[in-house]
Amino acid sequence: MPSNDFRLCFVGDSFVHGTNDPEYLGWTGRAAILAWKRGHRLTCYNLGVRRDTSSDIAARWQSEVQRRLPNSCAPYVVFSYGVNDTMMEEGCARVEEPVTIANTRQILRTAKSRGYGAALIGPPPIADRQHNRRIRRLSLAMGQVADDEGIPFLSTFGALTEDPVWMAEVSAGDGAHPGAAGYAKFAALVDAWHGWWFRG
Amino acid sequence: MPSNDFRLCFVGDSFVHGTNDPEYLGWTGRAAILAWKRGHRLTCYNLGVRRDTSSDIAARWQSEVQRRLPNSCAPYVVFSYGVNDTMMEEGCARVEEPVTIANTRQILRTAKSRGYGAALIGPPPIADRQHNRRIRRLSLAMGQVADDEGIPFLSTFGALTEDPVWMAEVSAGDGAHPGAAGYAKFAALVDAWHGWWFRG
Repeated sequence: MPSNDFRLCFVGDSFVHGTNDPEYLGWTGRAAILAWKRGHRLTCYNLGVRRDTSSDIAARWQSEVQRRLPNSCAPYVVFSYGVNDTMMEEGCARVEEPVTIANTRQILRTAKSRGYGAALIGPPPIADRQHNRRIRRLSLAMGQVADDEGIPFLSTFGALTEDPVWMAEVSAGDGAHPGAAGYAKFAALVDAWHGWWFRG
Repeated sequence: MPSNDFRLCFVGDSFVHGTNDPEYLGWTGRAAILAWKRGHRLTCYNLGVRRDTSSDIAARWQSEVQRRLPNSCAPYVVFSYGVNDTMMEEGCARVEEPVTIANTRQILRTAKSRGYGAALIGPPPIADRQHNRRIRRLSLAMGQVADDEGIPFLSTFGALTEDPVWMAEVSAGDGAHPGAAGYAKFAALVDAWHGWWFRG
């Protein structure tokens, strides 16, 4: 009999972490609350870390996730990153696109091979037009990898670029992270997505 | 100049994780919200893992915390565990008291040596009288170690045993974890505690 003890790890960067949310939920907490209200009592682990790139995540996710997903549970992992990879430092991207893509392929293949339900969520827009061009391009490339690997991918870039709440909160904040309402918008995208196992 | 970029890791078990809270905040999220409302914009990482004993925590906390507390921040770690150590399995405690005490001493010494602000919070009562006797005893011993090491210790056992909200929610739930109101009670103890750096 398949387990109904659903346990999810959300692995990623500061957007996964929910940085600057005065309600300390981020999009992951809000997506979990929406699922709970429909009867899905998910155990969720937030493994978002500020400033993390796909290379940081590739190096840590397996050990952190294994400790949290016992054999007895139904195990899921949601990955999301990309804004930090495309950040310029001293004239170079922190992680060049081919490396992000190789990291993504390796992460998704490993997650599949371990029997985890896996999904990938693309990076959101921030308040920097040049950076956003790179984010948009990387998001498309990440979606292609997920498609190749048969893993559901949610693009957030387009929807949040057109979302006045997200864009206003990001600009009013630190230039990258929204507040509570922006994170709620992100959560609504996840909640409505066909790749989300507990969708409304 | 000391950093005002306060980053906290909450390291522990399912009570730290906030298991069974339909609002997905637990006591850690609620304590952070209370601090935020007084102007402390804390970055909080929840590193609570269901079923973790002090031995599990001793084995993982350093690698998980190091990745989340960069040199540029003001680093804090709050530890809390004990209910799982005192759980009986096949006639034995999952972790015998001398081992829990040795783990605690080692954890606190390492945290100090790394320059982290550190605190220890004792295990809460559950809905099992025999188990509670062992929890109460372990909590006293943990408090003694913290005292020896000069680390602030918060005992939650007595206050929550006398708290009808905590005890009712634990009994109504899975016998160990409260719901939202019980976690709020735990958070209020932390928020009022002299050892909490951001107290009200």
